[in-house]
Amino acid sequence: MTQPFAPLANDRFLRALRRQPVDHTPVWIMRQAGRYLPEYRATRARAGSFLKLCKTPELACEVTMQPLARFPLDAAILFSDILTVPDAMGLGLYFAEGEGPKFERTIRSRADIDALKLPDVGSDLRYVTDAVTLIRRELGGKVPLIGFSGSPWTLACYMIEGGGSDHFEHAKALLWDDPEAAHRLLDLIARAVTDYLSAQIQAGAQAVMVFDTWGGALSIGHYREFSLRYLQQIAANLPRQHNGEQVPLILFSKGCAHSLEAMADTGADALGLDWTIELGEARRRVGDRVALQGNIDPVVLYASEAAIVQEATRAIQSFGNHPGHVFNLGHGIHPAIQPHKLKLLIDTVHSESRKVFGTR
Amino acid sequence: MTQPFAPLANDRFLRALRRQPVDHTPVWIMRQAGRYLPEYRATRARAGSFLKLCKTPELACEVTMQPLARFPLDAAILFSDILTVPDAMGLGLYFAEGEGPKFERTIRSRADIDALKLPDVGSDLRYVTDAVTLIRRELGGKVPLIGFSGSPWTLACYMIEGGGSDHFEHAKALLWDDPEAAHRLLDLIARAVTDYLSAQIQAGAQAVMVFDTWGGALSIGHYREFSLRYLQQIAANLPRQHNGEQVPLILFSKGCAHSLEAMADTGADALGLDWTIELGEARRRVGDRVALQGNIDPVVLYASEAAIVQEATRAIQSFGNHPGHVFNLGHGIHPAIQPHKLKLLIDTVHSESRKVFGTR
Repeated sequence: MTQPFAPLANDRFLRALRRQPVDHTPVWIMRQAGRYLPEYRATRARAGSFLKLCKTPELACEVTMQPLARFPLDAAILFSDILTVPDAMGLGLYFAEGEGPKFERTIRSRADIDALKLPDVGSDLRYVTDAVTLIRRELGGKVPLIGFSGSPWTLACYMIEGGGSDHFEHAKALLWDDPEAAHRLLDLIARAVTDYLSAQIQAGAQAVMVFDTWGGALSIGHYREFSLRYLQQIAANLPRQHNGEQVPLILFSKGCAHSLEAMADTGADALGLDWTIELGEARRRVGDRVALQGNIDPVVLYASEAAIVQEATRAIQSFGNHPGHVFNLGHGIHPAIQPHKLKLLIDTVHSESRKVFGTR
Repeated sequence: MTQPFAPLANDRFLRALRRQPVDHTPVWIMRQAGRYLPEYRATRARAGSFLKLCKTPELACEVTMQPLARFPLDAAILFSDILTVPDAMGLGLYFAEGEGPKFERTIRSRADIDALKLPDVGSDLRYVTDAVTLIRRELGGKVPLIGFSGSPWTLACYMIEGGGSDHFEHAKALLWDDPEAAHRLLDLIARAVTDYLSAQIQAGAQAVMVFDTWGGALSIGHYREFSLRYLQQIAANLPRQHNGEQVPLILFSKGCAHSLEAMADTGADALGLDWTIELGEARRRVGDRVALQGNIDPVVLYASEAAIVQEATRAIQSFGNHPGHVFNLGHGIHPAIQPHKLKLLIDTVHSESRKVFGTR
């Protein structure tokens, strides 16, 4: 299906992901539609619950658009939750007041794994693809829209633990004690994620990102065997050609700077980075194979304006005058951050990169 | 002062730290005297509070000895808390029921920093050095005794935040907003830590370790400037010659495998490692400059006995037939672990390393 979407006015984000020159470094921010914005909190209150916000396309569209009205961001990202896929697999996602996500049912045994089925993305996750199409129309070509999913390993952590966890005792014990069952589970999730991202692309997503929030909790050996392998499976199987263009795939394994070269070998178009590696060093390590997205510590937004300008400038200078950088934080923006500080950060990235590129 | 301590029967730990051959890889375990042991919980209950346990040399000695009665460990480590130094600087350490450590007073301003004084180790921390001497006597030369301290950056985090923290907003903001004041604070703490470790060595500690639990929360640039720099200051200034022998210094910055070479350049004798790097890879990177201590994920002790044997064997084989390895977990043993699993881990390290060394 081809939707009559408006042509793209600002393509810096897609150009940077394709390692083409841009006049300034494009910026988007993880959780840019989030609790630090009073207008988000108002919509969230009106929705009644976080899940209602995620599952109502009109509300998801509304909050997705909010940061774009305030800030000169170069991309929009679908407002959703990383746990939509296990919820669609029947685990019963819910949010207890003041706590993180939880599942009514957990996956602990081979029988649990064998009973799992691929979700029917067209029906069970229709609310997400409807939101994607609605947002894409609402954007009117202003900036590109990013779709996303949690990674197989990260989703498996939540499915096995039944929610967040400090140490992932049950999830890690499965890797050690029954690696065959773990591989079956991860393969199933990887197939579901591939279907899910493909449906988001069909619905209008112009780039897609996989968040591997808990990759860094694993040893290198387990990261490669149980997380990276399934990121690679997604990269190999996701149909990325759409309407004659390649839809870029961004992989982000937090805390996994140890495996950048291996991640670049997956065939992904770009890698997310946190602040435990210098951008310039990461660029030297992966060369021209992938674009890089990141990477300053979101905690800098608690510091002074001078510190924010200094850190953003340092990041831009570290990457240098090369194509292939999308600026972002190294993790989501915190709820306590004052919005004007994010504005300063974005403006600084734009102006400092123009200096570096000689495009002032 | 020279104490009439008994000669050392098992010197594998000290030999490994000096990169001398041993018949089997020595093992000790972070938090080996801890809540996973019923006898520890009994002494802790009798003491009435955790701080009472730390501050009463006889009780600290009692719990230090407990794991040695159960397991063939190759070293003892002083039972204490990493926050004794800021407590001695007047911050008022306390433990709220069911919560982590907290300070009555926090360090937030230049005035707070300027008002801080070096503790008088001989009086304010006498309970620690008394415990060291008592434990050393009680050990009777069975295995060596390790003394320890928190690192300047890690102690500063607690002092600034007033307790544990998810994101270290205040501590990191100080680094960005007033680096000069941060350096003054870190220098003062480094001098206090140096005095403290020196006093532990004088009292009988046969090796000393600095725990930089939060080094990995920093960007590489900030890690080098605000954490590693003060580990280096300690390594340079700590008098390590005692009774004609060099007392080894072990540095452990968790989550900082990115900076192993720089850590080896500090002049420390050994580096602690967590499970985000392979032992063999770490050994290749630091060469013969330092011994290595670590490194398997403590969560493996929740898995099956077969998994524990497999992971321990993998670690021993990864390091290979070279001198300079002390086996440990990559972080402290968890309170929920069954003691017999730790026994299996220790026995496996001993027997597998004998195979690798050809000393069966």
